[in-house]
Amino acid sequence: MERERVSEAVIRRLPGYYRYLSQLERGGMKRISSQELGSRMGLTASQIRQDINCFGTLGQQGYGYNIPELRARIGEILGIGQDRRVALIGAGNIGQAVAQYPGFLNMGFRIRYIFDVEKPPVGEKIAGIRVQHINLLEEELSANPPDIAVLASPAEKAQSLADRLIAIGIRAIWNFAPMDIVVPDGVAVQNVQLTDSLLVLSYHLNKLEYRDE
Amino acid sequence: MERERVSEAVIRRLPGYYRYLSQLERGGMKRISSQELGSRMGLTASQIRQDINCFGTLGQQGYGYNIPELRARIGEILGIGQDRRVALIGAGNIGQAVAQYPGFLNMGFRIRYIFDVEKPPVGEKIAGIRVQHINLLEEELSANPPDIAVLASPAEKAQSLADRLIAIGIRAIWNFAPMDIVVPDGVAVQNVQLTDSLLVLSYHLNKLEYRDE
Repeated sequence: MERERVSEAVIRRLPGYYRYLSQLERGGMKRISSQELGSRMGLTASQIRQDINCFGTLGQQGYGYNIPELRARIGEILGIGQDRRVALIGAGNIGQAVAQYPGFLNMGFRIRYIFDVEKPPVGEKIAGIRVQHINLLEEELSANPPDIAVLASPAEKAQSLADRLIAIGIRAIWNFAPMDIVVPDGVAVQNVQLTDSLLVLSYHLNKLEYRDE
Repeated sequence: MERERVSEAVIRRLPGYYRYLSQLERGGMKRISSQELGSRMGLTASQIRQDINCFGTLGQQGYGYNIPELRARIGEILGIGQDRRVALIGAGNIGQAVAQYPGFLNMGFRIRYIFDVEKPPVGEKIAGIRVQHINLLEEELSANPPDIAVLASPAEKAQSLADRLIAIGIRAIWNFAPMDIVVPDGVAVQNVQLTDSLLVLSYHLNKLEYRDE
């Protein structure tokens, strides 16, 4: 698949590359140098080359990168377009926002199940999917577990729901509950802490105000 | 405020420190060594010490860090509890999720204004705030611009809305539109791309499956 041990920092930059290259491709651009890609993305040319070299030989010295080719390769590395089956746990505001987020679908992530505890939304349809009671989780999913679970529950339920999902055989959890969950080896997790980026913004605002004084 | 030029990577780790220290403090713990803090946060002791040293002398050699003191200091650096006035632009799913996100309020970020274009939600109340039409943006905010705008509009409106917010005098934008916005010097922005963490998760899921084969 790729050379071993790609650092997490490189992985985290890949979605940004993908988005930016997609934008260039839509604009009809065919080639880009590491210098130009770097300056647009706030990275050095050498960092760009290092990042991309992790995944094999993709550019040509003096010719830069072929944009559609590089975008397709990064998309493949990120598993875009694999038609992943997704279960959404928790149909509150965040869950609904995720279920209806543009781009989610056309990257190949398809919500097939939605669970909640309250009625409504249990019994209603969201994004075309009937919301089921969480008590049916094991019954509905065990035979053919979805690839990914989106966990959008209150903080205090997050770990026990994650444990149930893992017991069913789900191997990737995208966690929006405001509490990091812990998973065993062999299960992937991304703990999204929405307020983290707000605090980074707040830090920068403070610095700007301090500069004014 | 702090020693100059703290790297963005350090800043991005601060909210995690804050969350983790808050959790320890709630659990009644008083002190922690850089080794222990590091092992719980997946960082080396030396990285922890380097990060925290950016903000002055906070630990004591051989005694570790005073948890309530360190938490309070990091909270101060991040601007937590400053009673920031926030305007929300776009009251769709994501906007509503943000408006009602737990923790947002008790960190001192208070939504005072909500704007949208459609009716409803224009005229309705969300989180106790009457949603106003976006046409009233300048009239309502110019005299006393909020500290922070949360931008939760469709991608194609994001940049022009950001330009209007900046023209009014808003200096920090938390952007959830699925399109990075560009701001001039003197304005802070955090472009949140929700799907980035999904793609990182998808990458790790692919690796797990590859390992199985």
